[in-house]
Amino acid sequence: MISSIAEKTTIVALSTPQGVGAIGVIRLSGEKAIEITQKVFKGKNLLNQASHTLHFGKIVDGDTVLDEVVIALFKTPTSYTGENTVEISCHGSPYIQKSIIELLIKNGATAAQPGEFTLRAFINGKLDLSQAEAVGDLIASNSASAHKIAMNQMRGGFSQEINNLREELIHFASMIELELDFSEEDVEFANRDQLRDLILNVKKVLARLIDSFQLGNAIKEGIPVVIAGKPNAGKSTLLNALLNEERALVTEIEGTTRDTIEDEINIKGTIFRFIDTAGIRQTDDKVEALGVKRTLEKIETAAVVMLLVDLNTTSPSLLHETLDEIKPSLEKNNAKLLIIGNKVDLKNLADAKKQFEDFENIHFISAKEKWNIEELKESLLETAQLHILKEDQTLVSNTRHWEALTKADEALTKALDGLNSGITGDFIAMDIRASLHQLGLITGEITTDDLLGNIFGKFCIGK
Amino acid sequence: MISSIAEKTTIVALSTPQGVGAIGVIRLSGEKAIEITQKVFKGKNLLNQASHTLHFGKIVDGDTVLDEVVIALFKTPTSYTGENTVEISCHGSPYIQKSIIELLIKNGATAAQPGEFTLRAFINGKLDLSQAEAVGDLIASNSASAHKIAMNQMRGGFSQEINNLREELIHFASMIELELDFSEEDVEFANRDQLRDLILNVKKVLARLIDSFQLGNAIKEGIPVVIAGKPNAGKSTLLNALLNEERALVTEIEGTTRDTIEDEINIKGTIFRFIDTAGIRQTDDKVEALGVKRTLEKIETAAVVMLLVDLNTTSPSLLHETLDEIKPSLEKNNAKLLIIGNKVDLKNLADAKKQFEDFENIHFISAKEKWNIEELKESLLETAQLHILKEDQTLVSNTRHWEALTKADEALTKALDGLNSGITGDFIAMDIRASLHQLGLITGEITTDDLLGNIFGKFCIGK
Repeated sequence: MISSIAEKTTIVALSTPQGVGAIGVIRLSGEKAIEITQKVFKGKNLLNQASHTLHFGKIVDGDTVLDEVVIALFKTPTSYTGENTVEISCHGSPYIQKSIIELLIKNGATAAQPGEFTLRAFINGKLDLSQAEAVGDLIASNSASAHKIAMNQMRGGFSQEINNLREELIHFASMIELELDFSEEDVEFANRDQLRDLILNVKKVLARLIDSFQLGNAIKEGIPVVIAGKPNAGKSTLLNALLNEERALVTEIEGTTRDTIEDEINIKGTIFRFIDTAGIRQTDDKVEALGVKRTLEKIETAAVVMLLVDLNTTSPSLLHETLDEIKPSLEKNNAKLLIIGNKVDLKNLADAKKQFEDFENIHFISAKEKWNIEELKESLLETAQLHILKEDQTLVSNTRHWEALTKADEALTKALDGLNSGITGDFIAMDIRASLHQLGLITGEITTDDLLGNIFGKFCIGK
Repeated sequence: MISSIAEKTTIVALSTPQGVGAIGVIRLSGEKAIEITQKVFKGKNLLNQASHTLHFGKIVDGDTVLDEVVIALFKTPTSYTGENTVEISCHGSPYIQKSIIELLIKNGATAAQPGEFTLRAFINGKLDLSQAEAVGDLIASNSASAHKIAMNQMRGGFSQEINNLREELIHFASMIELELDFSEEDVEFANRDQLRDLILNVKKVLARLIDSFQLGNAIKEGIPVVIAGKPNAGKSTLLNALLNEERALVTEIEGTTRDTIEDEINIKGTIFRFIDTAGIRQTDDKVEALGVKRTLEKIETAAVVMLLVDLNTTSPSLLHETLDEIKPSLEKNNAKLLIIGNKVDLKNLADAKKQFEDFENIHFISAKEKWNIEELKESLLETAQLHILKEDQTLVSNTRHWEALTKADEALTKALDGLNSGITGDFIAMDIRASLHQLGLITGEITTDDLLGNIFGKFCIGK
């Protein structure tokens, strides 16, 4: 892909989703985007038109009219890619779109690779690497929370934080390196205490960003939730009660239905993803305490665990036992616990409350009668601590960024150890440079073809 | 829908296909399209901008940025609908698109009904009814031939023919009606022989258009083809030989694969649809001549019949018998016949030719070895008489138009009978008016809410 940019090719692709619709948009980008379009366009001379203008006309292949279209012109550098860009709004017929793209290729354009438009935007300095990645996240975002993270990242909030850290570290590194130039004179330009403070400060920001990954990733992929409990505790009834209303909600506006709706719910803009525990069955010869034993592994991957019990068949002492049993697994991933006493419709609520008064975080519901389901959703949201997600708050949601941040932090730990043990400046400078390198990978100050191929290869064609 | 236009509402819908893509386009049309967009737009003041211009900015819901977008402005009357129109190019995320549409509705827009943009274009005189219908056909067109018919119709070729006929008839009717005004004076303004010639002339054009429906409809829906023959004659091998290359072709460019590819082939831009004869099996107790007996019903619905025989097990006399047997069914729909002698790889071609020299329209192939498959495709195309489909030729492909044309012709037959029997002018004028009414239904000079609802209800939302 990089080579195609160096060769100044003009790329073309369908930018709207495949399939039949009212309209489709074909996008061209490159030095010759307007010239190539002009060759197949009957209407005004596009070469004489201003940037950011729209032109009605026909796309013709010789005498055959392929379609009546509207052409949008964007001239370099004020386009998404920074290059001359043409967007052709045609009728939403796959046959027409295919015909027009083939015609443009016959006239000198090249079929775009996945993500190549955004790659060109990155190469031309229209956005940095983490912003480019956010474009992909933005397209994939399916909840208000995931959208907010991606939008903040695309608009450069995260890049700004990283650049601030880089600047501080570059300042630090240059002071250290200045000393090296005068090393024979044994001077110290950089006050060691000040340096230590600076590193600690950068590490504090890094720690915040690294810590935010758990929540950021959970928001992007959906908060992982496990419902633990015996099969007859009412797990599937509860899941249906949680999902049903959501189903009604998502069909209000067409096109929002997702393939895997069965095990996801969207509560006030946050996706909760239910981890499948369908494989968990009681063994034939021995009744497990609450059917949770085999759920332990799943619990270790969850952010929230809902322990579901049948109030009519579960004793407080059995519940205590179970809690003790799952405690180590809960602590492993620091998962939050909700105890849910189900089938309160078959029992007196006051009695139930009295019987289970020992348990703090217990909710009394009836999955069957849909009692207290809304309250349970609120608790889920609160338990997942999503109230901490504020406007413009930076959350790291990308595994690649998290890895780079972690490595940057490790390098700084080494630099700090070096400072503390009075190691010479050149070794400290090396660690600082290693940390800078990792931060540079995030925003794309430092890139490799492999890295770019990895990132943009995951994009759809036409973006 | 009509009432929403009368109320000057501004409509909004997603105009690109549902699903994840690089970009999506949300379209607004109506008096307040620009004002409503401006309420949620952060960027230039759209109210001060010229028509046919593009503007980068943000869609905001209070403090929350929903997306960075490009706004396309089209001011009345130079837009698709004739009304003020805004197209918002946003990121191709269903979540974002849903959020923006909800926001626009909250700010005064109304969700568009299926086809409402094109309905408004019709109401505002931007296109007539048959052109509007062609927009739907154009979007659904999946072959070069179907595309050509729809494009010709959308560009007004068909409407022009209908309007020419209407003008001639209106002239005729007014002459007759002038006589009625002077009926007490017993004058004849209209020369009866000239009137007869005029009606015959109009009927000739109508007959051509009505006749074109069989081909036009076949091109739009796919030319119906039946392969008749015993199961062991090699039907499925032949079908595969015909389809396989096509399969390779359609995967060249993504997104062109169709659901029902199994029984359709596209030969040089024309779709041939193979009618399922899978249910046809030999009876246990009696071997049918060529397995065609039960195929007779299917043959009656076909435009082309391929009679497939195994050259090694079929005698010329048996073939003669079979031809006699299927002849009435062939004639019923005027279907074309291709006789195909298969398994020529197991026989000497010269011998086969000699043995079957009595048969004119016979092709020798080997489905297994893929011998002469290309030649067979050419014959299919020729047999379907598609060489008669020229650029700009009008083919009626819409059942509604065909019905109206047929009724218009029937009314003219009555008028002609009236002329011949010397009936009074007022009765003739009634028949002419009936014919004009039918022609007016095609282009939408005459419409009803039911008719419009029927036509535009089949459109997708956003068109």
